[in-house]
Amino acid sequence: MSRYLDMVDHPSHVKKLTIPQLQQLAEEIRQELITQLSRQGGHLGPNLGVVELSIALHYVFSTPKDKFLWDVSHQTYVHKLLTGRKARFSTIRTTNGLVGFSSRFESEHDCYGAGHAGTALSAALGMAVSRDRLGTDENIVAVIGDAALTNGISFEALNNIAQSTRRFIVILNDNEWSIAKNVGAIAAYLNKLITHPSYNRLEKEFERFVRRFPVGDIALKLRHKAEEALKGVVTQVTLQPNQDPAISDGRGGYGSSLIFEEMGLRYLGPIDGHDLPLLISSLQHALQADQPVVLHIMTTKGKGFEAALKQPERFHGTGPYDAKTGIALPSPAGAPPNYQDVFGSALVKLCQRDNTLVGITAAMPSGTGLKALEKALPSRFFDVGIAEEHAVLFAAGMATMGFRPVCAIYSTFLQRAYDCIIHDVALQKLPVIFCMDRAGLSASDGPTHHGLFDISFLRSVPDIIGMAPKDEDELVDMMYTATRQSLPVFIRYPRGAGEGVSIKDQPALLEIGKAEVLKNWVPEREPRVVLFPLGNMQALARGAARQLEAEGYNIALVNPRFFKPLDQECLLFFGRAADVVVTLEDHVLMGGFGSGVLELYSEHGVATPVVRIGWPDQFVEHASCVEDLRHKYHLTVEHAIAQIKALCPLCQSGLVRASA
Amino acid sequence: MSRYLDMVDHPSHVKKLTIPQLQQLAEEIRQELITQLSRQGGHLGPNLGVVELSIALHYVFSTPKDKFLWDVSHQTYVHKLLTGRKARFSTIRTTNGLVGFSSRFESEHDCYGAGHAGTALSAALGMAVSRDRLGTDENIVAVIGDAALTNGISFEALNNIAQSTRRFIVILNDNEWSIAKNVGAIAAYLNKLITHPSYNRLEKEFERFVRRFPVGDIALKLRHKAEEALKGVVTQVTLQPNQDPAISDGRGGYGSSLIFEEMGLRYLGPIDGHDLPLLISSLQHALQADQPVVLHIMTTKGKGFEAALKQPERFHGTGPYDAKTGIALPSPAGAPPNYQDVFGSALVKLCQRDNTLVGITAAMPSGTGLKALEKALPSRFFDVGIAEEHAVLFAAGMATMGFRPVCAIYSTFLQRAYDCIIHDVALQKLPVIFCMDRAGLSASDGPTHHGLFDISFLRSVPDIIGMAPKDEDELVDMMYTATRQSLPVFIRYPRGAGEGVSIKDQPALLEIGKAEVLKNWVPEREPRVVLFPLGNMQALARGAARQLEAEGYNIALVNPRFFKPLDQECLLFFGRAADVVVTLEDHVLMGGFGSGVLELYSEHGVATPVVRIGWPDQFVEHASCVEDLRHKYHLTVEHAIAQIKALCPLCQSGLVRASA
Repeated sequence: MSRYLDMVDHPSHVKKLTIPQLQQLAEEIRQELITQLSRQGGHLGPNLGVVELSIALHYVFSTPKDKFLWDVSHQTYVHKLLTGRKARFSTIRTTNGLVGFSSRFESEHDCYGAGHAGTALSAALGMAVSRDRLGTDENIVAVIGDAALTNGISFEALNNIAQSTRRFIVILNDNEWSIAKNVGAIAAYLNKLITHPSYNRLEKEFERFVRRFPVGDIALKLRHKAEEALKGVVTQVTLQPNQDPAISDGRGGYGSSLIFEEMGLRYLGPIDGHDLPLLISSLQHALQADQPVVLHIMTTKGKGFEAALKQPERFHGTGPYDAKTGIALPSPAGAPPNYQDVFGSALVKLCQRDNTLVGITAAMPSGTGLKALEKALPSRFFDVGIAEEHAVLFAAGMATMGFRPVCAIYSTFLQRAYDCIIHDVALQKLPVIFCMDRAGLSASDGPTHHGLFDISFLRSVPDIIGMAPKDEDELVDMMYTATRQSLPVFIRYPRGAGEGVSIKDQPALLEIGKAEVLKNWVPEREPRVVLFPLGNMQALARGAARQLEAEGYNIALVNPRFFKPLDQECLLFFGRAADVVVTLEDHVLMGGFGSGVLELYSEHGVATPVVRIGWPDQFVEHASCVEDLRHKYHLTVEHAIAQIKALCPLCQSGLVRASA
Repeated sequence: MSRYLDMVDHPSHVKKLTIPQLQQLAEEIRQELITQLSRQGGHLGPNLGVVELSIALHYVFSTPKDKFLWDVSHQTYVHKLLTGRKARFSTIRTTNGLVGFSSRFESEHDCYGAGHAGTALSAALGMAVSRDRLGTDENIVAVIGDAALTNGISFEALNNIAQSTRRFIVILNDNEWSIAKNVGAIAAYLNKLITHPSYNRLEKEFERFVRRFPVGDIALKLRHKAEEALKGVVTQVTLQPNQDPAISDGRGGYGSSLIFEEMGLRYLGPIDGHDLPLLISSLQHALQADQPVVLHIMTTKGKGFEAALKQPERFHGTGPYDAKTGIALPSPAGAPPNYQDVFGSALVKLCQRDNTLVGITAAMPSGTGLKALEKALPSRFFDVGIAEEHAVLFAAGMATMGFRPVCAIYSTFLQRAYDCIIHDVALQKLPVIFCMDRAGLSASDGPTHHGLFDISFLRSVPDIIGMAPKDEDELVDMMYTATRQSLPVFIRYPRGAGEGVSIKDQPALLEIGKAEVLKNWVPEREPRVVLFPLGNMQALARGAARQLEAEGYNIALVNPRFFKPLDQECLLFFGRAADVVVTLEDHVLMGGFGSGVLELYSEHGVATPVVRIGWPDQFVEHASCVEDLRHKYHLTVEHAIAQIKALCPLCQSGLVRASA
């Protein structure tokens, strides 16, 4: 039997289906998601949660004319399936395939791109104001998760909505498990009242009803609550954010509907986000409002897949799994531990020995590995929500009191806290430690998640220390070293597997600004090439070194360790003696580590040719794996060798073979 | 008669004065502020507004043990006068003098430094959590202006306070004129109820009182309002943010006290922030609270100085003025117009011709000059509050709809929106225009306000265009050129006076990535020096050129115009032919324009020595004027010449004189 999903080639086709057919479509989409994502993984849980919402949106609205802005946009898989990308859906997050997020370059139905949280409301408001100025009648719908409200930008936007437009629809997709579940009945009832077109008439009737309440203590309270309820304020009672510190998820409470009402938005909800008819009627109601509206829907992450319901965090973004059981496909035997796991257990050990250390994350406890600290020493762990700026300022405040906070934040998300790094940490010389996870590529996520700019934006900041470990053992050394500094320290390291080296029992205290000479030149052989591979560029450098040595080159290999301060003495020594200097970095070339080496050489009159290997001046797309992108952008042994040979004067003059 | 102010050498001395003596002290401080700041200017209005608050804080609390965190901290002059910096107060904002902000390096009574808005709550929370962990009993008091609530970080912090600590005091210093003034009596009365120690008993009494209300429509409403009032919700009625679009100040409403209550803070207020006894008793009450407290005080900017009351915006941060009349001291006759004024009037003209252009600022309409647009074309002007991230995202949203927003944001504040620039503007290739005012030094403000990092943090971002005009006429050309691009454009220009050139009637369309050769070499004379002064470094370059020419050097002068993309052809041509290349930039050297030139030369094998002139790798302090700092850090004609001579091989070999 053919599926309704197979018939939907354009979002307009959704409108032709009946409610039972749409409900069938929802089930088919769930199966499609579960089956397809089992192969390469992806954001399964969030997408299973928005199946009905996505269908309802396309039933009520018409893209591309109407605009949907999905915050973060990892929950757009269903939207992709409904907007002509079904046939390519199996390619999602793979090389040359669909992006795992919304993208303006992928479809006219994606009006905005994202990957980071908290941007949808602001961008949507820009669109709504534009629409108003143009006098056209598009509907602008922003879909935000409850976690987006932990991010300050969402509030900056909320603060500007009511004064800017009268037509604006916010869907608050609330899938938090900390919210009590037994409120559905009352909420649905109240919502019927609230979303009914004759709301104002009902309000008067309700008032009359309330006035018949008996007089007395309990009645007074009841009556007050009833009044609140009428105004949508019932959520103050029923959806109170969880204040129990024992099960705090660090996201705090986002407050009840009152916050929206105070901000001038009409609040509708909460409603069951899996009830298609209710969703559709609520959206149709929101469509007719003459003021900005927030529709609060309750959804379940992972709905329809038992394994995802049981492990919502794992299935938020999952790797490949068994489509029946949800069991993760086994990693290859003997795979080295991830940098994230090494970071997590190293921090636990450091914290156990040093009471001044604490760990701070901005809603990424699993991704960064900081969860290990939460488990081992929960009182030393802080998750402040998707609030990178607050995370860094909070750390700065703690540092003024003698603590040494370790901020575990992805390189790309640290861009959010750039001003705080300059204005609050570096300028005030506070010893905050930044462990910048996912420096380099986040291959299957793509350009919104690659961490390719951090050296450039940090190197110009005075009074900081910047390092990158060559392997996971050196990461631990750098973490330990960082805890002994009086200046801010930034450690950048990649996503995923380490080099497989064993980790010392006792980490080493590294000398600040000192490189590590791994291999010096042999005497009296030319041409002399020195390789400076920063961080995870060791393997590429070693590969090039082996091959060049085989061809008769004299190779020195130096682990720079620091991108700030540079080891001037070492860089100058090798730079002056070499025929070619090679810098390698998992970072854009513009303004990066190699650029710092050029500055140093220029200042000291070293004119030796420098080959800089790194990422080009363009946004790098997503791919199945890092290797695909390194190959495409020429970060390979072959290209490194070709570039070295092209710049080596002795090589060009034919002296190499002779010398060999 | 000697003043009480003369007796206060340490904040503990404040505690020894009686209330009438403190009130006398307040008047003395006002006179001191008005007199002292008349000479070199400063943040007069805000400081006149917090005289009583500062006194009350030092009366109730004890620094340095207790911690005051002043948001932005431009309102710390009174605090400085009371904390042992009275004798040096006349040096504020001048070379080697006191900083105009809070500074950890200036006094033990300044526990945190600032300059940008929105950081105080987060940092204070870090301190409070540290205090709780240490088991000590410091009081942590954050003083924030109402405008700080337009900034998202304040909300990120609010979202984390209640779950993190039970002892936390926020002073909301509310000096907005848009708030009705006739609420004082009710508010003061209610506050007495609310801040009274037996609040809970009163609540019960109040309930009994309310139950005696007659039953009926009006009574019902009255009763409901009375209940709200008891909970501090009266502000919902009395302090409703101004929604009148005609007088909208772009800061939106920050919502009423309910927002604080929802966030788990106990709300006290609003109270008269100039009523010393009330302030002191409220602070003493706040001190005893067993949950985080926000004390909402109403103050008047400029209180005690007629001129400042009449022109609150001008006296927010003023230049020198007549201490009696407040009249601004006249600028030197014939002074060239400021870049800010040129920007403002140019944007008005461009907007008049192009309906797609709009102007956006983040609470800096006067500072940036965007006020001209507000006056001329108010519907094309947006002030979104101190919300740089929202400003940029809002612009991105508008750009997707065919508009071309011009974001007028200081270079240093744009650091706040760095991620939005990468993730939302550049990655999505949206034609947003950034006019980065105060690129370079903001001398009297100092390191929190210098704009010395923008080239470094922007240069590594793909798909952007970056320019810097050599004078105010070229600024207009660049603005016009920016309106014709399909990529994001960043224009950096300094604070203050332009070069005094006349501005063309019709701006020129500049070719992207093309430098302007102002003066080529004469034939066959050595040594050849080429100067590339970016933006406002023209005068320095011309000065050096004149002197070097007089000594026989052959000088070429090229205005690079673009820091991205670089004019490769031009840079390579001159670079290959020159004996020395000189880059000059009002920016840190690390990662800046000159560094980009080094990258280009390295890639193309140009080994000509490059002298890079710019700011060193350290935070640059404040000073009376830019010249003092240029002198101290060697950005002078003399040092430029010395550096050029040191690197010029022909010069070193004695050939210059011969050739001359």
